[in-house]
Amino acid sequence: MLRSIATVSVSGTLVEKLAAIRAAGFDGVEIFENDLLYFDGSPADIRKRCADLGLQITLFQPFRDFEGVSKERLAQNLNRAQRKFELMHELGTDLVLVCSSVNPNVIADDALIVDQLGQLALLAEREGVRVGFEALAWGKYVNSYRHAWQLVDAVDHPSLGVILDSFHTLSIDDPIDPIAEIPGDRIAFVQIADAPRQKMDVLEWSRHFRCFPGQGDLDVAGFAERVLATGYQGPFSLEIFNDGFRAAPTAATAADGYRSLLYLEEQAGLKGARSKDGQPLFTPPAPPAHSGFQFIEFAVDATSVPRLAQRFAEAGFHAAGKHRSKDVTLYQQGGASIVLNAETDSFASEFFHRHGLSLCASAFQVDDAARVFERATSFGYAPFSGRVGPNERVVPGVRAPDGSLHYFVDARPDEPTLYEADFVLSAPDSERTQAVQGELKRIDHVCLDLPADALDTWILYFKAVFGFDAEPAWLLPDPYGLVRSRAVRSADGSVRIVLNASVDGRTSTAQSLHTYRGTGLNHVAFDTDNIFAAVEQLRARDVQLLRIPSNYYDDLEARYDFADGIVNQMKDAHILYDRDAQGGEFFHVYTEQMDGRFFLEVVQRKGGYDGYGAVNAPVRLAAQAQRKHG
Amino acid sequence: MLRSIATVSVSGTLVEKLAAIRAAGFDGVEIFENDLLYFDGSPADIRKRCADLGLQITLFQPFRDFEGVSKERLAQNLNRAQRKFELMHELGTDLVLVCSSVNPNVIADDALIVDQLGQLALLAEREGVRVGFEALAWGKYVNSYRHAWQLVDAVDHPSLGVILDSFHTLSIDDPIDPIAEIPGDRIAFVQIADAPRQKMDVLEWSRHFRCFPGQGDLDVAGFAERVLATGYQGPFSLEIFNDGFRAAPTAATAADGYRSLLYLEEQAGLKGARSKDGQPLFTPPAPPAHSGFQFIEFAVDATSVPRLAQRFAEAGFHAAGKHRSKDVTLYQQGGASIVLNAETDSFASEFFHRHGLSLCASAFQVDDAARVFERATSFGYAPFSGRVGPNERVVPGVRAPDGSLHYFVDARPDEPTLYEADFVLSAPDSERTQAVQGELKRIDHVCLDLPADALDTWILYFKAVFGFDAEPAWLLPDPYGLVRSRAVRSADGSVRIVLNASVDGRTSTAQSLHTYRGTGLNHVAFDTDNIFAAVEQLRARDVQLLRIPSNYYDDLEARYDFADGIVNQMKDAHILYDRDAQGGEFFHVYTEQMDGRFFLEVVQRKGGYDGYGAVNAPVRLAAQAQRKHG
Repeated sequence: MLRSIATVSVSGTLVEKLAAIRAAGFDGVEIFENDLLYFDGSPADIRKRCADLGLQITLFQPFRDFEGVSKERLAQNLNRAQRKFELMHELGTDLVLVCSSVNPNVIADDALIVDQLGQLALLAEREGVRVGFEALAWGKYVNSYRHAWQLVDAVDHPSLGVILDSFHTLSIDDPIDPIAEIPGDRIAFVQIADAPRQKMDVLEWSRHFRCFPGQGDLDVAGFAERVLATGYQGPFSLEIFNDGFRAAPTAATAADGYRSLLYLEEQAGLKGARSKDGQPLFTPPAPPAHSGFQFIEFAVDATSVPRLAQRFAEAGFHAAGKHRSKDVTLYQQGGASIVLNAETDSFASEFFHRHGLSLCASAFQVDDAARVFERATSFGYAPFSGRVGPNERVVPGVRAPDGSLHYFVDARPDEPTLYEADFVLSAPDSERTQAVQGELKRIDHVCLDLPADALDTWILYFKAVFGFDAEPAWLLPDPYGLVRSRAVRSADGSVRIVLNASVDGRTSTAQSLHTYRGTGLNHVAFDTDNIFAAVEQLRARDVQLLRIPSNYYDDLEARYDFADGIVNQMKDAHILYDRDAQGGEFFHVYTEQMDGRFFLEVVQRKGGYDGYGAVNAPVRLAAQAQRKHG
Repeated sequence: MLRSIATVSVSGTLVEKLAAIRAAGFDGVEIFENDLLYFDGSPADIRKRCADLGLQITLFQPFRDFEGVSKERLAQNLNRAQRKFELMHELGTDLVLVCSSVNPNVIADDALIVDQLGQLALLAEREGVRVGFEALAWGKYVNSYRHAWQLVDAVDHPSLGVILDSFHTLSIDDPIDPIAEIPGDRIAFVQIADAPRQKMDVLEWSRHFRCFPGQGDLDVAGFAERVLATGYQGPFSLEIFNDGFRAAPTAATAADGYRSLLYLEEQAGLKGARSKDGQPLFTPPAPPAHSGFQFIEFAVDATSVPRLAQRFAEAGFHAAGKHRSKDVTLYQQGGASIVLNAETDSFASEFFHRHGLSLCASAFQVDDAARVFERATSFGYAPFSGRVGPNERVVPGVRAPDGSLHYFVDARPDEPTLYEADFVLSAPDSERTQAVQGELKRIDHVCLDLPADALDTWILYFKAVFGFDAEPAWLLPDPYGLVRSRAVRSADGSVRIVLNASVDGRTSTAQSLHTYRGTGLNHVAFDTDNIFAAVEQLRARDVQLLRIPSNYYDDLEARYDFADGIVNQMKDAHILYDRDAQGGEFFHVYTEQMDGRFFLEVVQRKGGYDGYGAVNAPVRLAAQAQRKHG
């Protein structure tokens, strides 16, 4: 598979774009006409620069409003095409994208259009170039790939093919099965974009909200599979118009783009797609089967360790062990493990130096750690290895997008557990759940604060490396701005991570990012079988819970039927409540912030409730704001 | 006119919102239910807080999905209403907004709905409250005010009125003339919002893009005039859902909201509206007639004066005078005047201290300076007066939204001119245009860089104080992100100001804001009658022009017909070109940045061209980026 991307998809000057595109691994590039117009050099200079980089110019685009015009206009349009064909010679590409006309006066006459496209094909043949005709979803007359293909098929000239674009097809719910009717060698080019579903004009949606495959809601993999089934042997080329990408660092966006094509190839392959051009599809090692968090690890210093240990002790965690060779301590309750890393001159101390007290690593229980590690690095995510003491377990890890570490730990029945290998434990690991009693059973989910516009990068990371599913996004009002929130999770729900990105700079999410100068932990939620008992236990140890206004409970009673007394019980315990359409219930309570930073949540799920109480997030955000601002 | 605003319109905790709303001048406030739910205190606490502030609670809202339901659901809904009515007693308001149902299963039966609203009216009467029924533009069955009014009219009960909302009416192009059919005393409440036209789902549009009247594209003044013609005597209340406002400082948003209601009253009055409740509509002094910029003034220090003077000299400006009592110098060319203010211990030096070399003031020629000043301050904009030496002119001024000064200067036929009064001139002012020869004739427009989300504030300022019109917004791609651009101008076009706000943090617009730490001058454009002669003159003095890529000119030739040679001439001179639909032409050229900051533009308008060459802005932005980044 030749992997290509349009210059419009990344930020920067053309020189910066080309360098980043090549560095990311792409084989080819579409030159977007505006990038050429803005470039202070000749088309031949661009050709040379691409050749030096080893980048093929796969396409020049777009050529607009060609078809369905008067005889006079046709002559002008052919003249205009002639100029662009000459430019293409200089640029060193033989393929141009002609998109269907958006002119309100386009003549809606297939025979006329076939004749005019035919003349264009003849001109192209004379000039030794090829034309690809693409239906824009908002084309005035031609607006579906099937119509575009009918016209191209009728012209029946080797210099004219059809161009398919996943966005133009999937955005208007155009069926993808008829792609099979197109011979693969008549598809001149394939453009790839995903997008989140938006209720808006399709042109505006396309211009501002496209994203890389895997980051949106469209069935791009299904589209790719249908395309490959035709025997198409040309490039898959990303063409992304995205306001965020326009402002994001060039290299990072290009790297994500390349990974997204790898991910797409894997997903299309899983649907049965096979490449027929001798360049096999990317087939990484399979994603892991998950069985929960192994631990979460905080970068701390000598001063913060006793303070934080005290907070976790109040929350019911017990000091479970000390690392054999490092200044690292382990706290446990039920199946939940927390590691405090105060090791100097280490990854954690670097992290502490940059971010202060913060989440510096997470470890995930998987079926085969080595395989996940191999999968992650095959997508180009950076491997990490730290110092390992004698007899300690070598734990494979990669850098998450914020530079923190994600470790993969598998069960090894014949060996000591990770904790047994690396820690001097206060009790054998097998007796852990007996030894460490408490109402908190395991980590239900972790919520991370991300910089604005980092959401897409993280979604792609979790899908590609972990095989996670991404849930629909929420837009949550904080008293000082909006927060975009999206959860990812393993298929079995044993690992769940909520990603929050502030749309603006004044929300608590954004504020905590200012403190962290990077991604930060917003909170960690622990599962319990009895939230009232859990709250009682927390209160007995003087844990401060976030006060929820009594007005909230009055409204709750007006909205739902409850057994007598339960709402008062929730009110007294500051427990929030949600109910899903199937009657599943969610009870959750928050602590005040610890060390002015993250906080804890305790949750109880009943009757198959599968969300995170997002409907209550504004209540929590407002309560936190009132604590600070009154 | 009782002026009110919904709590949802501004950011912050409820306590912060109420204080800012009162400080801005509002008489009343709508309590949005979520703000009450999130408030950590009782409804009575809110009542007391409002009473202490002197704020009337004009409305409690919203109550949803009441009408068109089964008998069982009606009982539940009446029970739910009963609870909310009790809450309203505690809150101290007697009016609740019931919005039309969005439930997909709503029963589309007017007789049934009339019966159910009638039962609600009876309950309200018993409870001593009133219900206002509002049609949401996206209501499932009831979605226009006329339908809502038909239903309310049929119920015919004094405890039930109709609520009108400018957004719900104007967003769906619902005609406003039939408002006249509603008796004023049957209108329970009026909500006011404007919005920029957006091609999107009306619900999404409403939730994220509403703005204050005067900031958007809707005929809110026409709506208000129709409402007042009914004899309606209740409040006008702003209800604005806006993502930007949610994140903006509370007090500033509230102040703009209050000004926007004043502006709306004036505009409605100009359409013939009269208030009938004894509280007259706001009628400020009339906006000025404009006759161009008097001068623009830069805050400089002793070091930057000679450097900047040199740059302006190269651009053809002559040293025209020195201020009689201050360290202020005047540079002129044709009708364009530039002032360099190096006065220490002054407004300018404060500005220099905060922003460095920057535009600190602009002076505008108007018909009556005192009247404009009075108008500006009546809208609550802050007056400014500086030191005035003996016999110097007292020039009224106000603070623009960024703290810079806007002076108003009128012609006084029997007195010395401003320059004659305040400056020792190198030639009499009457001989200025003779004395100061050059190809630049006058200031065509000034372009300001604004912080993101400041656009609406500036639009309102220029409309309210200057009586300017605002042109449609452009979204311009910079290589490092998008820039939102909107021009304001006097009716005669003698004063034009382009406002640019970067959507993201990496564009050149945003970068210059980082340098300025506030609003900054992006560039100033001078008018010429002969752009080729002007370029020749600039080049003769070694002014560096911004290089425009030759590819731009190749494309220009493909797009338009030109007289022979002219494109080559433009290419050689780095002149950009635009043509409007009527054949009007625009030629413009940019200098390199001066002092690493702003730059100059020279423009020539032909055949009534009335824009700013926005289509070329991306070319300019890319050329500037390439100068810096390659």
